[in-house]
Amino acid sequence: MTTEFLISEIRRKNSFLCVGLDPDLNKIPKHLLAEEDPIFVFNKAIIDATHDLMVACKPNIAFYEAYGIPGWRSLEKTINYLNENYPEIFTIADAKRGDIGNTSAMYAKAFLNDMKFDSITVAPYMGKDSVEPFLAFEDKHTILLALTSNEGAFDFQTKDLDGKELYKQVIETSKTYKNAENLMYVVGATKAEYFEGIRRIIPDSFLLVPGVGAQGGSLSEVCKYGMNENVGLLINSTRAVIYASAEKDFAEAARREALSVQTEMAGILSR
Amino acid sequence: MTTEFLISEIRRKNSFLCVGLDPDLNKIPKHLLAEEDPIFVFNKAIIDATHDLMVACKPNIAFYEAYGIPGWRSLEKTINYLNENYPEIFTIADAKRGDIGNTSAMYAKAFLNDMKFDSITVAPYMGKDSVEPFLAFEDKHTILLALTSNEGAFDFQTKDLDGKELYKQVIETSKTYKNAENLMYVVGATKAEYFEGIRRIIPDSFLLVPGVGAQGGSLSEVCKYGMNENVGLLINSTRAVIYASAEKDFAEAARREALSVQTEMAGILSR
Repeated sequence: MTTEFLISEIRRKNSFLCVGLDPDLNKIPKHLLAEEDPIFVFNKAIIDATHDLMVACKPNIAFYEAYGIPGWRSLEKTINYLNENYPEIFTIADAKRGDIGNTSAMYAKAFLNDMKFDSITVAPYMGKDSVEPFLAFEDKHTILLALTSNEGAFDFQTKDLDGKELYKQVIETSKTYKNAENLMYVVGATKAEYFEGIRRIIPDSFLLVPGVGAQGGSLSEVCKYGMNENVGLLINSTRAVIYASAEKDFAEAARREALSVQTEMAGILSR
Repeated sequence: MTTEFLISEIRRKNSFLCVGLDPDLNKIPKHLLAEEDPIFVFNKAIIDATHDLMVACKPNIAFYEAYGIPGWRSLEKTINYLNENYPEIFTIADAKRGDIGNTSAMYAKAFLNDMKFDSITVAPYMGKDSVEPFLAFEDKHTILLALTSNEGAFDFQTKDLDGKELYKQVIETSKTYKNAENLMYVVGATKAEYFEGIRRIIPDSFLLVPGVGAQGGSLSEVCKYGMNENVGLLINSTRAVIYASAEKDFAEAARREALSVQTEMAGILSR
């Protein structure tokens, strides 16, 4: 999917919401456990209930790997369902992968080519040749971890690397990578004031922002500092949406929560 | 597996060789493609041919993900085969995983609990709470990326973070993590002189060293600077061993290559 199409979908839906699909069998409504594939039934219901309110959908691969081959099957069914029924939704494989060149190419094949995700999150620690194999895919995006939303972000990301915070070095250096125009970045919402400095480095790039909702962080603050003229933001919400209810009305409850966020976004977009 | 047992196996086998299992259907002997599960047949033959010469075995998960569910099945069969037939071999899930706390816990469940790998490689970028869920597993090891063997290592790892190279900050900071005694580290062999400084920080930790063989780097140099009184090294070789021959004698050729490395190691250990 091109960035242009993503931007047009944001305008059409008046939304820049990304819904994360992190299914946990201990948390989904109990009546679903009787299903042959509880995870896919759960995901499908959430997708059907929120598809018009979100522009992006982000399964976190760990939650599927945790269930072995059945989990991987549920993941494949989920991405196939999205690709067949809602191709306009920007899909993100939240995998945080990264390895030496020929190995990153294997990860890129699995997610971008075979499962046909629109994008994948990638870890930057191993540098250029670990990231470029993902960037080589045309009309696919690589979402590089820059500043994450968890406590451990302060271990290294916010420390000075050669006179500038590591996360800024990651962003700046990545601009020199081949096919850098395919890059987006993960920037944690709990650090709204950091967006100003980041936008000075990458005014036009899309930012995937976890940490709004259950992880904290204010939508209006993030938009104030992080939005550009093409919006340039994908705000993720997972637990607040998918676990809005643990009962049989879980899909309707998910829709209510997504609608609440999308309404606030529409208000911001109309200013 | 405890470190004590690993050390006793190194002494017993006179080897600190780790064989990497990165099966690529384009590279394995063509006659195997007629098999129902070429990847598992390939892996099993390599394992059976080299089991007494290696102390560790390291499937890189990307090569299995690249083949979807069949690949994942081959991975499960491979680790089950190792666990059932050669439980004395230290198994490493080379996954380079890492995410926020509850998500890292899912990765840890998948590899350390469900597939019963002895250890897993983890990326450090997201810091403490992304690593500690792996460390929480008793008698399991977390192998943290420190200094990797690829060109991109120079993007960030070797730069100064608060006055010290990032890879050194990663190692030093990780020593403060809960259950840090379960840590090992990836240190690229192409940078033998770095081992001196690293050993000053972590004299007793095990180091997983890729980059000997096809990726370059001298075994004797690495041992000179990196070995401690308990050896403290796992030297990985993948392509030189598993692709020593592309013909029907691939397993025998793999054994010859592994024996050549083990012979050199036995010589070093006997000094």
